[in-house]
Amino acid sequence: MSTSSSQTDIRAIDVIRKKRDGVELSRAEIDALIGGYTRGTIPDYQVSAWLMAVLWKGMTRGETASLTDSMLRSGEVLDFSDLPAPKVDKHSTGGVGDKTSLVLAPVAAAGGQLVPMISGRGLGHTGGTLDKLESIPGFNVNLSVSDFRRVLQTCGCAMIGQTAEIAPADRKIYALRDVTCTVESPFLICASIMSKKLAEGIDGLVLDVKTGSGAFMKKEEDAAYLAELMVETGERMGKKMAALLTDMDQPLGHYAGNSLEVVEVLDVLRGKGPKDLVDLCHELSAWMFLLGDRVKSVAEGRQLSKQLVDSGKALEKFREMVRLQGGDPHSIDDPSLLPKAQHTLDVTSPKAGYLTAIQCEQTGIACVILGGGRERKEDSVDPSVGFVLHKKVGDKVAHGESLCTVHYNSESRAARAKTLLEASFQIGDAPPKLRPLVHRVISKFGDKN
Amino acid sequence: MSTSSSQTDIRAIDVIRKKRDGVELSRAEIDALIGGYTRGTIPDYQVSAWLMAVLWKGMTRGETASLTDSMLRSGEVLDFSDLPAPKVDKHSTGGVGDKTSLVLAPVAAAGGQLVPMISGRGLGHTGGTLDKLESIPGFNVNLSVSDFRRVLQTCGCAMIGQTAEIAPADRKIYALRDVTCTVESPFLICASIMSKKLAEGIDGLVLDVKTGSGAFMKKEEDAAYLAELMVETGERMGKKMAALLTDMDQPLGHYAGNSLEVVEVLDVLRGKGPKDLVDLCHELSAWMFLLGDRVKSVAEGRQLSKQLVDSGKALEKFREMVRLQGGDPHSIDDPSLLPKAQHTLDVTSPKAGYLTAIQCEQTGIACVILGGGRERKEDSVDPSVGFVLHKKVGDKVAHGESLCTVHYNSESRAARAKTLLEASFQIGDAPPKLRPLVHRVISKFGDKN
Repeated sequence: MSTSSSQTDIRAIDVIRKKRDGVELSRAEIDALIGGYTRGTIPDYQVSAWLMAVLWKGMTRGETASLTDSMLRSGEVLDFSDLPAPKVDKHSTGGVGDKTSLVLAPVAAAGGQLVPMISGRGLGHTGGTLDKLESIPGFNVNLSVSDFRRVLQTCGCAMIGQTAEIAPADRKIYALRDVTCTVESPFLICASIMSKKLAEGIDGLVLDVKTGSGAFMKKEEDAAYLAELMVETGERMGKKMAALLTDMDQPLGHYAGNSLEVVEVLDVLRGKGPKDLVDLCHELSAWMFLLGDRVKSVAEGRQLSKQLVDSGKALEKFREMVRLQGGDPHSIDDPSLLPKAQHTLDVTSPKAGYLTAIQCEQTGIACVILGGGRERKEDSVDPSVGFVLHKKVGDKVAHGESLCTVHYNSESRAARAKTLLEASFQIGDAPPKLRPLVHRVISKFGDKN
Repeated sequence: MSTSSSQTDIRAIDVIRKKRDGVELSRAEIDALIGGYTRGTIPDYQVSAWLMAVLWKGMTRGETASLTDSMLRSGEVLDFSDLPAPKVDKHSTGGVGDKTSLVLAPVAAAGGQLVPMISGRGLGHTGGTLDKLESIPGFNVNLSVSDFRRVLQTCGCAMIGQTAEIAPADRKIYALRDVTCTVESPFLICASIMSKKLAEGIDGLVLDVKTGSGAFMKKEEDAAYLAELMVETGERMGKKMAALLTDMDQPLGHYAGNSLEVVEVLDVLRGKGPKDLVDLCHELSAWMFLLGDRVKSVAEGRQLSKQLVDSGKALEKFREMVRLQGGDPHSIDDPSLLPKAQHTLDVTSPKAGYLTAIQCEQTGIACVILGGGRERKEDSVDPSVGFVLHKKVGDKVAHGESLCTVHYNSESRAARAKTLLEASFQIGDAPPKLRPLVHRVISKFGDKN
């Protein structure tokens, strides 16, 4: 498609007007807006008005795919087609204690797939894969594209941050959305996620779309809408897609905080770890194997995932990746080498009964307050702080029993976090109805599983 | 009300979010946004997102009044309270051939009122009072505030353009609305008009809200909504208000174009002129006299207006104002001294019948194309061009009879304008139902008239 001449004929004001009036935008119109903004010929104030009009009027599936592709093509699209193995990845919409990426990448690589994973940092109350990786002494998430390729080719997985060359339109638009209250549109969320993920040059993508009190999309119908939108957008762009709506109504696993989560990842890779986290890792791995044509069913994928963990092959892959990306491989075998907070304190139950609910977002905010995330963009992250849950929803608790242990370096921050955590736990007289781990699967692939 | 400390606590992002989510904004929040934008501490891109959210969610009457007052107080508010006569003005939402301001100001002044009129230039397909006045050789619309006061005090009326000191927030916001498709909101239109008009230091304001094919608000319900909004906003700010919904389904009077309209104004001030224009001038003058407590009824106001024209006093005021503002007073007595186009051509009727409709906006665009308005902001205006209608809606026409005469200086522009004008006239077999001149009056004042 020739675009350069048609783009110059399209004025930003007409693109804004059409969207404001609920008229579907053409591919050329979206290209003109995104291209002009990326090149700097269309100013922030026109794009922000357009973004608010998108929140107002929404987008069709065609517009969403055009926007995603236009943002994707604003920068470099990695090409690993010369590497014969299937290239798959996973993306999570984010939560508290969600450390599955650090398990999945080595599991998938141990299973013969390639995982060129580009991840993000903590956002709001949620943690970020890059912050967790950086708690491993020496680990470098800022690889050049050629180093990224070298690590990927050598060990089958590599994990880096978004580079300046990948989807620059998304970087610019995301910053603008953040300051103009236009973050929440599912169409813009979809285009932002998918433009970055599809720049990885992958064949298949598993989406872990979180729902519950610790997710960005608290309501299941909102999460399902976004999941379907992303699956259809990926399919329109020729990718194999699956979305799992998974529970984020309480922290995933027991550990939250950067180095604490790496400790729990190492537990899982050693065949231990808590049931919810282990189950979700195997479920997501199974789908990555299915989309990569490595297995014929989800059940077979689960089996393969368990084998790769039990045999120690996945842990070996993780150790190799850490080493190749400059991290200290000894810390993988001796987690006491990971950053450790100076102090701990316990949050105890005010009465006997059952843990009926956890206000999950509040626990994520507590972790940010401790220094495990950023209250302002320019803040640095303390890798050692966080909390360890001793009880999960449904567990019986005694009066005065510890619900969680807070790991901290600042008394004043610990006091604020403790107050928040205390208010997050709900103790009742009867055991609650437990929510399923996977609420729904949206995919053309798979079996009845 | 103290605002400086509360303003610094309010973040633009929260004001955008509230509006996006349909929450009513407080006076302090609106002040923080408008003040910050005027001072330059809040960037364009946040205000444009907010403007689009206002188009989406609308505003309450309280928010509209707050916005108007905040924009008004962003600059200088003129104070003529030391001058004892009632201070009144009229504002029109704009149309084609709408030259009533040039009649009303001297009529009201001749009747003992003060008219400190701040006007605008042509906008889109509509003409502007300033452009018309500048077709009088030497007339200066850029007076300092002290010269404005001197002219007002000497002759009772003065007509200038918006100064840099008057409502700077409106100037900045208007420019932003223009490039972000956020012009059409009645709340933003109301605040823009009223903030400028109330900066004139007036006691009462008559609004001429146009409706029909040549108006910005083509539908009567939209015009009525805006009229009611402006009346209530003015009343909340302690002003006497009246709004007349008047017809703009065909050009007002017979003349359109800057110096041509001055010729017709002089006709009206000499007791001649076409019925629709004359009637509307007396009607609007009557309301200005009523709001200024100069008469007890609209009927009495009409009488007074006619007397002031018939006695020549209104023409005398106009001549005086022209002289005081640097214009050539001889051109008032000898209109041949006004700028005159070099050529004329006629648009004739393709068949016999009745003139059933005129696409009024098209005729305004024809006038702009001739050079009588601006296609781009930086264009200069040709004062001499325009057209003279020979037939109005309802008139009988013969085959080949002239419908209007085009006054032009450029053959190519004339050809384009002629094509547009030819397509604007609709000739039918039966006379059409005529629309009333005044569709509705919205005011607490007045009688059954």
